[in-house]
Amino acid sequence: MRDRIRALVDHPLFERAVIGLIVANAISLGLETVDPVMAAIGDLLTAFDRLVVMIFVAELALRFVASPTRFVRDPWRWFDTVIVAVALIPTTGALSALRAFRVLRGLRLISTVPAMRRVVQGLLDALPGMGSIVLLLGLIFYIFSVLTTKAFGADFPDWFGDLGRSAYTLFQIMTLESWSMGIVRPVMEAYPWAWAVFLPFILATAFTVLNLFIGVIVDAMQSEHAREAAAEREGLMGETEMILAEVRALRAEVAEMKRPPRA
Amino acid sequence: MRDRIRALVDHPLFERAVIGLIVANAISLGLETVDPVMAAIGDLLTAFDRLVVMIFVAELALRFVASPTRFVRDPWRWFDTVIVAVALIPTTGALSALRAFRVLRGLRLISTVPAMRRVVQGLLDALPGMGSIVLLLGLIFYIFSVLTTKAFGADFPDWFGDLGRSAYTLFQIMTLESWSMGIVRPVMEAYPWAWAVFLPFILATAFTVLNLFIGVIVDAMQSEHAREAAAEREGLMGETEMILAEVRALRAEVAEMKRPPRA
Amino acid sequence: MRDRIRALVDHPLFERAVIGLIVANAISLGLETVDPVMAAIGDLLTAFDRLVVMIFVAELALRFVASPTRFVRDPWRWFDTVIVAVALIPTTGALSALRAFRVLRGLRLISTVPAMRRVVQGLLDALPGMGSIVLLLGLIFYIFSVLTTKAFGADFPDWFGDLGRSAYTLFQIMTLESWSMGIVRPVMEAYPWAWAVFLPFILATAFTVLNLFIGVIVDAMQSEHAREAAAEREGLMGETEMILAEVRALRAEVAEMKRPPRA
Amino acid sequence: MRDRIRALVDHPLFERAVIGLIVANAISLGLETVDPVMAAIGDLLTAFDRLVVMIFVAELALRFVASPTRFVRDPWRWFDTVIVAVALIPTTGALSALRAFRVLRGLRLISTVPAMRRVVQGLLDALPGMGSIVLLLGLIFYIFSVLTTKAFGADFPDWFGDLGRSAYTLFQIMTLESWSMGIVRPVMEAYPWAWAVFLPFILATAFTVLNLFIGVIVDAMQSEHAREAAAEREGLMGETEMILAEVRALRAEVAEMKRPPRA
Repeated sequence: MRDRIRALVDHPLFERAVIGLIVANAISLGLETVDPVMAAIGDLLTAFDRLVVMIFVAELALRFVASPTRFVRDPWRWFDTVIVAVALIPTTGALSALRAFRVLRGLRLISTVPAMRRVVQGLLDALPGMGSIVLLLGLIFYIFSVLTTKAFGADFPDWFGDLGRSAYTLFQIMTLESWSMGIVRPVMEAYPWAWAVFLPFILATAFTVLNLFIGVIVDAMQSEHAREAAAEREGLMGETEMILAEVRALRAEVAEMKRPPRA
Repeated sequence: MRDRIRALVDHPLFERAVIGLIVANAISLGLETVDPVMAAIGDLLTAFDRLVVMIFVAELALRFVASPTRFVRDPWRWFDTVIVAVALIPTTGALSALRAFRVLRGLRLISTVPAMRRVVQGLLDALPGMGSIVLLLGLIFYIFSVLTTKAFGADFPDWFGDLGRSAYTLFQIMTLESWSMGIVRPVMEAYPWAWAVFLPFILATAFTVLNLFIGVIVDAMQSEHAREAAAEREGLMGETEMILAEVRALRAEVAEMKRPPRA
Repeated sequence: MRDRIRALVDHPLFERAVIGLIVANAISLGLETVDPVMAAIGDLLTAFDRLVVMIFVAELALRFVASPTRFVRDPWRWFDTVIVAVALIPTTGALSALRAFRVLRGLRLISTVPAMRRVVQGLLDALPGMGSIVLLLGLIFYIFSVLTTKAFGADFPDWFGDLGRSAYTLFQIMTLESWSMGIVRPVMEAYPWAWAVFLPFILATAFTVLNLFIGVIVDAMQSEHAREAAAEREGLMGETEMILAEVRALRAEVAEMKRPPRA
Repeated sequence: MRDRIRALVDHPLFERAVIGLIVANAISLGLETVDPVMAAIGDLLTAFDRLVVMIFVAELALRFVASPTRFVRDPWRWFDTVIVAVALIPTTGALSALRAFRVLRGLRLISTVPAMRRVVQGLLDALPGMGSIVLLLGLIFYIFSVLTTKAFGADFPDWFGDLGRSAYTLFQIMTLESWSMGIVRPVMEAYPWAWAVFLPFILATAFTVLNLFIGVIVDAMQSEHAREAAAEREGLMGETEMILAEVRALRAEVAEMKRPPRA
């Protein structure tokens, strides 16, 4: 029984059908935003959406049954499961806003199409090497969030009212969006020394993000370079082999000359 | 007959005349924006513009006749044809706005001057290798467009009223222009959890565009590197050759010693 | 006595305890921003904070006694000392704003956790090589600060009233935040030629920062490359050795043939 | 006579004195912006400034007399001459605004301090290789300036009233400053299709500037790489030499064996 399911799940047509369904679902969810279409075939679209969720649940169940350990170990399957699970939450009352998030199901394309999974995997693979930098960025954010909350929170509650608001405002400042005219100049009217907090923050985050950036570039180049160097090395080996073959042939000849001392 | 046309079209003077005409036309269209000049010689400029269009039509017709297959296969010729065709659309009534687009004819410089064509070609050549990344960026844009339209469209019709407006607003957010003070802070007043949509979007697009960027850099470096490595290799080959020549000469000498055992 | 202190200070548990205390202190200072927590255990948090400062003073005193010369020469220890000293300033009256800066103590994580110290050290190490570029940037800022203060200071005192304000505004312009709509367009209404000051400034700083950026990238790649090249070289050495060994063995054999002329 | 002047001009103390004077002048011009200082010693500062200009004129005259051809051929001397000449323009009446530009004299540090001249030279040296890209950027700017002037100039005279204003606004859009909320959204209210002009412009300039950027990076890496490759090559040469020396010694020995057929 399990072998049959495994054969079904691993069949290339199975993957293609799932990809087709994800694309069709993404389009149907997009059509739901067009009012005339919704008025004409809205019920159909809703019904199709429900059908797709059921098929996705069945698909993931089949994949789980086919090989439970592989399913549990593969982070992409967890990703799929969470995305499909969101669709099963009743979207009435307080949680109705979650209905909009159903379209995230389209992200299943990333976990299902191999070429896309490779791209994202490539992005994620570069991260562990920069753990220290991400931690450093986190530390800078935490310390400046606490600092700005304590220093400016009372006077500017919208921007620095609590740790969350401060972190959001600092993120905005890090992206340089309206940092001066929007935030720092108004703050400086109350606290003229405020630039001494925000300018170091901008320079520190800019330098840290630059380093993150360089880390990713150097990583990408290095793997490219390693591939090239390996190829080059093989070429060199070939040349060394040629010389060695000649020298060894020569030694054999000389040895031959010596052994029978002219018989 | 066709041979004569081909000889004319391939003549270096022909290309220079066309380039001169494109530049003159670009300048004349620029002069049309200067009111005093327009008052003085406006009729002349309009007449010159019509003349240039006719010459361009004739030029492209000649090129087509000279070698139809080459014309049809060359994407730059299609580019030229579309740009010249725009000038032939009657620009009265509803389409009068198209008059302003006549200056796009100046872009023919890109397809006609070889040095510029190489630059643009270089940019375009890097694209196919990053098909997956562009697709990923498209997927992110589509999913977030649908999501924001459904979630915020009713309350912010100017920004998220339909898929097109949402995509435009998300493009603005991706470029980080007024993303927080202009868009996300107002949205967060109605939906306090809106940051949980936009911050992941900013991080995802920033990381994807960074990868696009790195892809182009690595590609440029790689081709540079390949050129250098080839040159280096040739050098090494030369050295290997020198050693091999010596060793082979030695083998020949030794062989000579053996063959006639002192006759 | 000093040996005992040194043994204590160099003990791995000592470092871990200090790191634990820094983290606990950072969290306790963060909790101070949450009003309900402050109402419940505010006194406790304040007491804990005072205790931590005393421990830090003791810790630095021990480190100093353990090896005064190493302490004085290590810039990280100066960094620690300054940060802890800020906490000892009486924070009443005019200096009460300094209370918010106590959280900077969390930055001691950078000097205490080796992985983080390495990241920051890596950033700082790249700087000396770019001394000229930083100096050039400083010169550009100084000259344009003086220029804009003299030219626009009288009409726009908020932006260009004195050298400090001008430098701040120019920093904002360098980050491209609201440079045109916020600053240059209003200035151009009074001085239509103002773009001739600000556009060169933007281009000059962009090009200088780009060079700083490239300097850091090239530096990072170079050290990466040097490591690889050394490894590659070792491989090549090995190959050369192989050939030399063969050729030398051959020479020895030939020499052996010659010495006893057939005895 | 000329030899004496040349000896004076080439003396290291002469250069140091000029550098000292430039720095002192930059500081004195900076002090002119501080009102209390100006009230106290304003006359002194003005007198010093006039003195410095006279010294600079004399210095450049001496340099010219010392070697006229070298002076005329060195672009840095032209740079110095223009900067000093600005100070000689009478700054009364309509040209009084030029007084503020006297501080540009501080830029003479770039042409006088060798380390700084090298940095700027490095920046400038990378430019010629990217002539085509700069030309392409210029073409894009010109065409879009004409297009937007014709299309939007009548309704938005402040932004697109003539070619100059359009070029300035497009430069602002290229830097992404307020491009959407400030410019394109208002324009789209009158011309809903305006995004079809500005989005291609943003993408085209971003891609062109990215290429300029990559060109500079690749150029910097390449020269770095060339230096390393030369060093590596020398190392390889050494190894080849070692093998060749051994093989040649062997050949000499074999030849020796052959020549005297056992005498």
